[in-house]
Parts: sequence; C-alpha cells; structure tokens
Amino acid sequence: MRLRDEIGKCAAELRIHGGRIDAAARLYPSAPQPWIDLSTGINPIAWPVPQIPLALYQRLPLAGDIARLTEAAAEAYGLPANAAIVPVPGSELAIRLLPRLTGAGRVGILAPTYGSHAAAWRDAGAEVIELVALPDPGARDLETLVVVNPNNPDGRAIARADLAAFAQAWTATGRRLIVDEAFADVRDDVSLLAMPELPVGAVVLRSFGKFFGLAGLRVGFAVVTEPDASAWRRLFGDWPVSGPACEIAALALRDKPWIAATRTRLAADRKRLDGTLGRAGLKLLGGTDLFGLFEAPDAIDLLDHFAGRGILIRGFTTAPRHYRFGLPADDAAWQRLEAACGALAN
Amino acid sequence: MRLRDEIGKCAAELRIHGGRIDAAARLYPSAPQPWIDLSTGINPIAWPVPQIPLALYQRLPLAGDIARLTEAAAEAYGLPANAAIVPVPGSELAIRLLPRLTGAGRVGILAPTYGSHAAAWRDAGAEVIELVALPDPGARDLETLVVVNPNNPDGRAIARADLAAFAQAWTATGRRLIVDEAFADVRDDVSLLAMPELPVGAVVLRSFGKFFGLAGLRVGFAVVTEPDASAWRRLFGDWPVSGPACEIAALALRDKPWIAATRTRLAADRKRLDGTLGRAGLKLLGGTDLFGLFEAPDAIDLLDHFAGRGILIRGFTTAPRHYRFGLPADDAAWQRLEAACGALAN
Repeated sequence: MRLRDEIGKCAAELRIHGGRIDAAARLYPSAPQPWIDLSTGINPIAWPVPQIPLALYQRLPLAGDIARLTEAAAEAYGLPANAAIVPVPGSELAIRLLPRLTGAGRVGILAPTYGSHAAAWRDAGAEVIELVALPDPGARDLETLVVVNPNNPDGRAIARADLAAFAQAWTATGRRLIVDEAFADVRDDVSLLAMPELPVGAVVLRSFGKFFGLAGLRVGFAVVTEPDASAWRRLFGDWPVSGPACEIAALALRDKPWIAATRTRLAADRKRLDGTLGRAGLKLLGGTDLFGLFEAPDAIDLLDHFAGRGILIRGFTTAPRHYRFGLPADDAAWQRLEAACGALAN
Repeated sequence: MRLRDEIGKCAAELRIHGGRIDAAARLYPSAPQPWIDLSTGINPIAWPVPQIPLALYQRLPLAGDIARLTEAAAEAYGLPANAAIVPVPGSELAIRLLPRLTGAGRVGILAPTYGSHAAAWRDAGAEVIELVALPDPGARDLETLVVVNPNNPDGRAIARADLAAFAQAWTATGRRLIVDEAFADVRDDVSLLAMPELPVGAVVLRSFGKFFGLAGLRVGFAVVTEPDASAWRRLFGDWPVSGPACEIAALALRDKPWIAATRTRLAADRKRLDGTLGRAGLKLLGGTDLFGLFEAPDAIDLLDHFAGRGILIRGFTTAPRHYRFGLPADDAAWQRLEAACGALAN
C-alpha cells in the first residue's frame, strides 16, 4: 500500500500542466499501458493529416503560404472588418509574449483560469489582480484585463453581446482587453470575432491545436487592430509558423464538413463523459465540449486513483477537490474510464 | 525591352529578404519554371525527413521529447559546462525577442550583417550603432554587442580564441554579447560552443534549418547561462517547437555520417560556384560553404539579369553591386546558372 505522503507527492507533480504523460508513467510505473491522457482539453480524434510535400519542410514559408493560412482562419473564425489575423507558433507563446509587447503595469485576470496568463504577466514584472467577475469598466486601477472565454477549466462563458459592450467601454480609455478564445471553436456563439469591428486595444487569441486535435503543430492566432497588427507581425517575423503547420492548419480550417461533424461528436462525447462521471458520484461544475470540470465527493485523490489505472486527468493545486477530464479517444479508453469509475463507486 | 525604372522597381522588391520566390514569379512572369532559389543560404539538399508518427502532430511535445532534442543539439554543436540549450521556434524569433528579454539601450552591431538584428533592436526602441570591427572591450558606451560569426553575407569570421577572449572582457562588466552562429555548422572552428565555459551574459544563437536544409521546420537554439536560461525557458514555455520538428531535428542532429558528407559536398559545391561566377566576371568578396558574396563588374543589375532567367539571387539595398548566391540543388540548376552566367559574359 502506498503512503499518503507518497501519493500526494506524485499527484502534486502532475498538477502543473496537462499532457505530462511521461511524468505520469515514471511516477506510476505499474499502471496499465498505454496511458490514456484525459488531462488536456485537446480533441482526441484529430483532423486527418495528409502527406505534406517535402518542399514545405525545406524552404521558408512564403508570403502566399501565410496568406492562405490567415484567409482560412478568417473564414473559419470570422474577422472584424478592422482587424488582422497574425499567425503565431502556438497561442501559448502569444500569451507569454503579450506582456513584453504591451508593457507590464497592473493587470486583472478573471480567475480561476489557465495559469500561463498570470505567470507571463508576473514574469514581466506586472502586478496581477485576480478578479471573480468583469470589473466596472469605469474603474481606473487596471491597465489590462485578461478574460478566457469560454473559460478553462470551468467553462464559464460571457455572452458575446455582454463582452462586446464591455470591450467597447473598457478599451475606450486606451486600456487593453485580452480575450483568450482557446476553446471558442466549441462555443462559436461567444466569440468576439463575429463583431463587425474589433475595439482598438482588444487582442483575441485563438488556438488551432485544441479543437483540431493537433496541439503538436504549434499554431495559434492573434487577432488585433492596427497598429498592434504591425507590431505583432514585426515581432514574429515573416516565418511565424512552420511550413508543414502552415499547410496543415490552412487545410483543416477549410474542412467545413469535418468541423461540423466534430462539433456534433464532441457534444455527444461530453454528454457521455458527464453521465459516466456522474454515476461515479462526481459533481459536474462546468466545462466546454472539449472537457468537463468535476468535484470529487470527498478527500479521495482522484488524480492518484485514475493514474494508478493508467488514466491521466488534470488536478489543480489551488482547488484540490476539482478535476478536469478531457474526452476519451476510443472504445478502449471509454472502457478503461468506465472501469476506473466503477472502482471509485465501490 | 523593359525600362530601367521598371527593372529597378522589380529588383528593389526582391532585396528585402531571401526566399521570396513567390514575389519573384509575380514580378517576372515569363521567367522559366521552376524558379531556382539561390537567394538564401539554405542547404538545397536537405536531410532526408522520414515518416513521422502522427502522435507527434497530435499531442503536445513531452518534456522527454524536448530533452532529446537539446541533448542531440549539445552533442552536435558542443556545449560549455555552465550553459544550457533552449530550443526556439526558429532563430529568427530569438533574434526578434532578444531586445524584449534584455531591455533596449545602446547596442553595437558588427555590420554589414543580417538585417533582422538591427530591425529588432530598433523596433524595441534601442539605439543601434553599426561597427566595422569589434570595439575596444574597455569602451563603456554600449550595453550590448551583436556579432554574426561567421558573418552573413560576407563570411567574415572571427577566430574562436579571439572572440572568446573578447567575450570574457566584454561581459566581465555585465554587458551582453550576442553571437549569431547561424552558419557555424560549416565553420565549426569558430563556434564559441567549444569553450569549456560560456561567459555569463553571452548568448549564442544556432539555426537548425540552414545547414540541414529544413528551414521550413522553424527550429533554432539559444545557448545561455543561468539565470538567462530560466528566463528563456519561461518565455518560450514547455512546447517551444512543434512535435514533428522536435523529432526531425533530434534525428538529423545525431546523423553524423550525413553531417560529415554534407560538409564535404557543400565545400565542393561552393568551389564550383566560385569558379562559375568568377568566369562570368564576378569578383568574390567572401562567403561560407553555404553561400558566396560577389561584386558585379559594373552597373548591371544582376538581380534582374538572373531573375529574367528564373534564378532568384540576393541583392542588398545598401550595397547595390553586391550579390549573394546560394548553392544550386541539382544538375538542372547548375546548368541554368551556367547558362545565365554565359549570357552575362557575352
């Protein structure tokens, strides 16, 4: 039997980020193989990557390659008339660079949320204020506000009309609003990119890899107005994403039948996830169609329980009873999850 | 016949960066196809990319994937005992971000050299001083010095022992030295990465794509000491390069037979290039085994001459008689280059 200390130590190491299946396998060497990674909000059934011409690996991406990517993104996401889409090598890097582009100061972050936002601002010397709701747009004590919409990990969503009205008021005095729409592919109704005009000073971030299940490609987008767009383009240069990633993302973003079928599938799988975990006594707190956030019924360490069964889920140091579950990829993964839930209920 | 104005306008648009074959094809629509791109210093015979497991496209790169990449880079490049290698999505992005990490101020750049250095520092608000030689290390008017070694486009190289001694003296007073070794794969003898210890404050940049002919992958490395290494890692995050790029670069960097054979081939091809262009009346100014810099004999616009024959070379706005030629990939490319040179001599 494992000591509680040891359990705590193992589980703590897995609470930092999702996707650490190599760490999990080291910490739980006798867990069944292969590991099932439910610790991220990445679609487990990826857009099918075709063979890519080798020339795209060899030459630098051309201006035309980048233009095709941004046009595909604009068509898939929408694009306010006054805004431009700047591709970035993963929205994570955009999150980390934002404070370097805009300057630090006092930044409000709607919390709890994805941890990299606060980390990046603190690293750049900013003072981070965690907020539980949108501030009064008339308040003058913050220079920047960060909102993840829909939110990770709890799925809290601000309606488009409400956030658009807030954005207008907030940015009118020259302040910045950063809206991370990493999971908006499954909440199209909240995206600010359907606005006819983007307020100057607003930055909308999109992630390619999560919905399309291709997080390894490292592709994201920043949607901004001038003069921000020029500054972003100068910072990321003429070759902001790899040639293969540029091609694959452009093709995937134009695949409307796959996108529609995937939205339907993810919604169905999410419903199945809620049912499975609900029957095991977990309380649903929220989520999006790419993940659910659940509360454990008592002091049991779910991370440890599932890791022992070769299933990696996401825990949170600041909310030890909360766990985020991504979607299983296939029948084998669903069956192992259901068996692990059964062992929990007993 | 084309008017001189028009020639000038076309050629000017091609003097910005290498690799703009889409722009060239638009400006010279009747040039023979396919375009032969000699405008970059990228090895035209790439390391042979194998089939990559789809899982690397789908999941985020694991800590183990990144570790394997940095270990392969350390083995290929060398690594001072006190330094760490941080992968970046292309050394271009490292160049552009450096001023944001270190702060602006007065920066000296050994010129003429690769234009992104000065552009990045100016964008960040720094005062850029162009220098023709290493400054007196005792002079106190600069906070940062940028040296490309061997230099692009003229191949000027500073011997390792000289630069190492300078680096010690320069950084001893807390100043930064940035050494861009983008082309050091073909000048192993000058790399600072063979130093047993890297002076604190020195930053060595390496490019993966040029020597391995895989510029589309966007992989580079920053080699730094602590505490810089932690700052770089925090800035670029846990997934600084794409999964496929991580795997491909790690495999290529460990392919010692290919690396050795490629160095030999590049040296032979460079010799052939010098002969071909020399017979056409061009004067060799310098270069590395990945490119040569040549002076045109008179006011003829070589960029226009070669572009009309479907060959893109690199011109420079600040030195209109200087042209950089990369290496042709195959017999067809050599033959077209030789024919274009013949037309020049007549």
